[in-house]
Amino acid sequence: MDLKMNIAEMEDFLVREFPQVAEDFRIERSDADGIGVRLRVADRHLRPGGTVSGPSMFALADVAMYLAVLARIGPRALAVTTNCNIDFMRRPAATDMLGEARVLKLGRQLAVGDVLLYSEGMAPPVARASLTYSIPPRG
Amino acid sequence: MDLKMNIAEMEDFLVREFPQVAEDFRIERSDADGIGVRLRVADRHLRPGGTVSGPSMFALADVAMYLAVLARIGPRALAVTTNCNIDFMRRPAATDMLGEARVLKLGRQLAVGDVLLYSEGMAPPVARASLTYSIPPRG
Amino acid sequence: MDLKMNIAEMEDFLVREFPQVAEDFRIERSDADGIGVRLRVADRHLRPGGTVSGPSMFALADVAMYLAVLARIGPRALAVTTNCNIDFMRRPAATDMLGEARVLKLGRQLAVGDVLLYSEGMAPPVARASLTYSIPPRG
Amino acid sequence: MDLKMNIAEMEDFLVREFPQVAEDFRIERSDADGIGVRLRVADRHLRPGGTVSGPSMFALADVAMYLAVLARIGPRALAVTTNCNIDFMRRPAATDMLGEARVLKLGRQLAVGDVLLYSEGMAPPVARASLTYSIPPRG
Repeated sequence: MDLKMNIAEMEDFLVREFPQVAEDFRIERSDADGIGVRLRVADRHLRPGGTVSGPSMFALADVAMYLAVLARIGPRALAVTTNCNIDFMRRPAATDMLGEARVLKLGRQLAVGDVLLYSEGMAPPVARASLTYSIPPRG
Repeated sequence: MDLKMNIAEMEDFLVREFPQVAEDFRIERSDADGIGVRLRVADRHLRPGGTVSGPSMFALADVAMYLAVLARIGPRALAVTTNCNIDFMRRPAATDMLGEARVLKLGRQLAVGDVLLYSEGMAPPVARASLTYSIPPRG
Repeated sequence: MDLKMNIAEMEDFLVREFPQVAEDFRIERSDADGIGVRLRVADRHLRPGGTVSGPSMFALADVAMYLAVLARIGPRALAVTTNCNIDFMRRPAATDMLGEARVLKLGRQLAVGDVLLYSEGMAPPVARASLTYSIPPRG
Repeated sequence: MDLKMNIAEMEDFLVREFPQVAEDFRIERSDADGIGVRLRVADRHLRPGGTVSGPSMFALADVAMYLAVLARIGPRALAVTTNCNIDFMRRPAATDMLGEARVLKLGRQLAVGDVLLYSEGMAPPVARASLTYSIPPRG
C-alpha cells in the first residue's frame, strides 16, 4: 500500500492539530506493515508505584492507530475513534512505551486495526488494543 | 447489596492512592444501583475545538467502575483493569462529564460492569464503556 | 422515537431474510426503550452439561440488536454487524434465554447499542454485549 | 514455550468434550507461534447470499483460542471464555474459513489472545477477534 505521508509530515501534523500532546509521542517507524510510536513517559503518565497509567496507554494506542490511518489516507484531521477495546495484560515498567500498530481494514467509511503496547526493555506485550476509526467523506 | 464504603471514604481513598488525578473527579452518587462520578473538565482534558479527549473519557469510565467495585468490596487498591471496551458515539461538549456506572457481576476473581458517559446538559450519552476488573485474593 | 416496524412485521422479515434461524427467536417486546427477544433453546444450542453455547448467546445478542435497529430504520436487510463485544459473566441455565437490547446511538452510518442476556428464571444477567451496526446508505 | 498437547490429542479432546461441534473443525497447525484451525463450512454455517454467519465466525474464533490455550496448559475442559471482542471487517466467501490464533498472555487466572479469520482463497482477513479465557485453579 502506498503511504501518503512520511514521518516528518505526520509529526508536523500532530504538532499542528494536537499541540497539547504532540511532544509526548515520537514516530519511530512507518512502513507497509504499520507504524511504531514511542510514548515518552514522564511523571504525568505515571501512577503511584511507577506504572504507566491506563489513560496514557489508551492515548498511545489511539495515537498509533490514528497515525497509521493518516499515513494511508493523508492528512484528514476529522477521522474519529468510534471503538477501542483494550486488554491490559501485564504491569508496565516506568520506562517509555512503544505502540506497534497495523491496519487490518481501510474501507471508505471505517478503518480497523490493532496495536501491541510494550514497555521498553520488556519482551512480552503489556497490553493489546483494537480500534475502529470513522473516516469522513472526502469534502 | 451492602456497600462497604461511603462517598467520603472513597474520595479519601482516591486522594491517598491516586493523588495526581483525585482532584479531577467528584463522586455524586453511590447506591445499590451503581455510582455517578463527575469529571471536572479543565483545559488539560480538552482537544482543540473544545471536545473532551478520548483518554479523559477513558479515565472517567475507568475511575467510575473502579469506585463502584470498591464500594462493594472495600478498599483494596490492587484491583486492576483487565479489559475496557469503549464506543465513542457523539462529540462531547466542553462541559463537565458524568459517568454512570453499574456493576453487573461481582465474582471472587472478576468484576464486570458498564458505564454511560454524558456531557453535562446534553441528554444522549456521549460514550459507553464496559470494563472488567481483576480482584486480588484476600491477603 | 417513532418505530417503523411492529413485532409482526419484524417476525415476517426474519422468516423471509433469515429462514434458517427465524424459528429460534420470538420477539416479546418492542417499544421506545428497546426490544426483548427470546431464544427458544433446543438441543442444538446446548453444550455438554446443559449450558447454552457461546455462539448461541452471540446469535441472540446479534439478532436482538439487529431487530432493535430495524424497528427504528425500517426493513433494510443490509445493515451489518461491524463490532461485537461480549462479556460472559455467569453459567447459563438450560432454559430459554432472553435478550434485552437498547439502542444508544442511531446515526446515519452507525448504530450502537447494548444487550443484557438472561437465562429464564435467573435474576442476574448471564452475559452483556455491545454491538455496532453499519447502516447502508438509502438507495 | 512447551506445548502440552499435540494436534491428535487436541482433536480427541474436542470429540470427547464437544461432540456436537467437533466435526466442524480441523486443527491445521500448532506451534510456538499459535494455532491454525479450519472451519469446514457447510450449509448450516451459511446465511442467505452465501456468507458465513456471524455465530459461525464467533465459534471459530472461540475454538481456535480455546485450543491454543489448551495446547499450553494441557486438557482442562473448564477453561471458560469471559470476553470476546470481534470486528467484522469484510464479507466472507462461502468457502472454508481459517482462524489463526496467538496467545499474548498466559497467566495463572487469565489467558488473552487474538485471532485473525480468513476466507480460504482471499488474502485480507475477514474478521479479527480478541478473547480472554478464565483458567480454573489446578484441582
